[in-house]
Amino acid sequence: MIRIGIFGYGNLGRGIEAAVRKNDDMELKAVFTRRNPEDLKIRTENVPVIHVSDVEKFKDEIDVMILCGGSATDLPNQTPELARIFNVVDSFDTHAKIPTHFENVDTAAKEGNKTALISAGWDPGMFSLNRLYAECVLPDGKDYTFWGKGVSQGHSDAIRRIDGVMDARQYTIPKEEALSLVRSGVNPDFTTRDKHLRECFVVAKDGADKEKIENEIKTMPNYFADYDTIVHFIDEEEMKREHSGIAHGGFVIRSGKTGFDNENSHIIEYSLKLDSNPEFTASVIAAYARAVYKLSYENSFGCKTVFDIAPSYLSAKSAEELREKLL
Amino acid sequence: MIRIGIFGYGNLGRGIEAAVRKNDDMELKAVFTRRNPEDLKIRTENVPVIHVSDVEKFKDEIDVMILCGGSATDLPNQTPELARIFNVVDSFDTHAKIPTHFENVDTAAKEGNKTALISAGWDPGMFSLNRLYAECVLPDGKDYTFWGKGVSQGHSDAIRRIDGVMDARQYTIPKEEALSLVRSGVNPDFTTRDKHLRECFVVAKDGADKEKIENEIKTMPNYFADYDTIVHFIDEEEMKREHSGIAHGGFVIRSGKTGFDNENSHIIEYSLKLDSNPEFTASVIAAYARAVYKLSYENSFGCKTVFDIAPSYLSAKSAEELREKLL
Repeated sequence: MIRIGIFGYGNLGRGIEAAVRKNDDMELKAVFTRRNPEDLKIRTENVPVIHVSDVEKFKDEIDVMILCGGSATDLPNQTPELARIFNVVDSFDTHAKIPTHFENVDTAAKEGNKTALISAGWDPGMFSLNRLYAECVLPDGKDYTFWGKGVSQGHSDAIRRIDGVMDARQYTIPKEEALSLVRSGVNPDFTTRDKHLRECFVVAKDGADKEKIENEIKTMPNYFADYDTIVHFIDEEEMKREHSGIAHGGFVIRSGKTGFDNENSHIIEYSLKLDSNPEFTASVIAAYARAVYKLSYENSFGCKTVFDIAPSYLSAKSAEELREKLL
Repeated sequence: MIRIGIFGYGNLGRGIEAAVRKNDDMELKAVFTRRNPEDLKIRTENVPVIHVSDVEKFKDEIDVMILCGGSATDLPNQTPELARIFNVVDSFDTHAKIPTHFENVDTAAKEGNKTALISAGWDPGMFSLNRLYAECVLPDGKDYTFWGKGVSQGHSDAIRRIDGVMDARQYTIPKEEALSLVRSGVNPDFTTRDKHLRECFVVAKDGADKEKIENEIKTMPNYFADYDTIVHFIDEEEMKREHSGIAHGGFVIRSGKTGFDNENSHIIEYSLKLDSNPEFTASVIAAYARAVYKLSYENSFGCKTVFDIAPSYLSAKSAEELREKLL
């Protein structure tokens, strides 16, 4: 059994807890929290909740520690710290800062003779993998990534900061015309506006100037100004009833040419339609925790990403069984 | 530069020749043929065409030999034979015989201190990879593979063997209703008939009994009896004009559940739409030839499959560049 620790018990941590139950070769050993452990109720019976300050005491009882904090402030510190003591997996998703995070975690994991894997999830993660495979298979081609339909936390937060806004939810929606054009093989060039639509649901405070709010949203630089943006004002009750979902998804498409005279076109398309963004991310992480566990037994220390892991490491099945049943 | 040899110059061999030109770190070193080399004209200038009996003379001039013969009778002998002398890649695609082929190639490659990779292509190959990744990420789920729209060589040949048939082309077509049902997340059980349609274009000989031919096709066991089959009789000229394409493709979809109470559904979908089946297969092989080349320098000998290769080995880019640009 692979003994799993969960470090941080938010949406992702709860997703990991559920994912562990779907993998017969894994067991949840402990959940670590910054809160008062007595105040935290988890769903798995007979698993202790431990304060983060006591984490080192578990160094011989946990095979892989899964970090469930946020990429902005938690993971940049926590993953290197814990990688000295545990094999770790995180879902660090700030694309631009991955190289720095990788270096920090790599140094720490090598010092501790531990195996670490960062940025597991769907983007980065499964989407990155598909971008890599597709680029290698069709070197003469073009990549397209579309996100949605799903809620963007960053864009929702940006709306909430506007004066007069009580609550907001922003959906990123890929434009069907753009998807169709990519699938046709013509390798189009898109503006930002061409690819995605932004649909916003906003609860305004009593007496707020809705016209002003709508204008502030639509003209907000970086977030909305370059997009077709639709704004709906709704009441609190509707927000709660219709917009508390955590569904997400998207598409990675590569369109490429082959042949002596580029006479043939090919489309490779990978897509995800997810009822629960955190639970799917957790499921990806669980599979990579198995790989980290196996690699640690091969003394393959330091930091890895999904690019460095042979697919067979993700599976509980033997190499023979995989060749026989899945190849 | 990775020096590539092509062993067998049919559709796939010509595809490899074109694929090598798309990869800046590869060069075509020689083409090997069972025919009289002087009768064979290839498209790349200044590359020699050599009779297969002289292949051993090239053992120090070729980094990876790509086998382009058929899975029925060529590859079961050729791949093990050549794996003693060269690093090799083949596209062996008889699913049921992969374990035996693997063992034979593994033994030979280990004896010769060479690296071999079998069954590269799209199915087996990219489809297998996606089945594996999706199964690991969503262990509680169900897999669906659909092929087409594309020509099935085996089914076309079966029709051609019927008395009175001059020529035939059979298209395997996934049924839209079945695809939609899978994408809805209900995890349906399908009969063979539910998933694919078989559409046949047949040129009958003069005076042949078309009704009898159509009946023989539709009732042919294994090939057609379990399917909805449509038969069109056309003339030779239309066959040549409309049905000489080599397009193919298909879908690998996994639908799975997560959550403590299986409350969330997720759909992972991978699809290919290929203008040229052999050229796409060749493009996959070229990427895996790069991996085989790198692994041979790490003294990682024996037989591998796509499951054993970390994705970064397929790329000409450095690990740093991949993390920065693709993750």
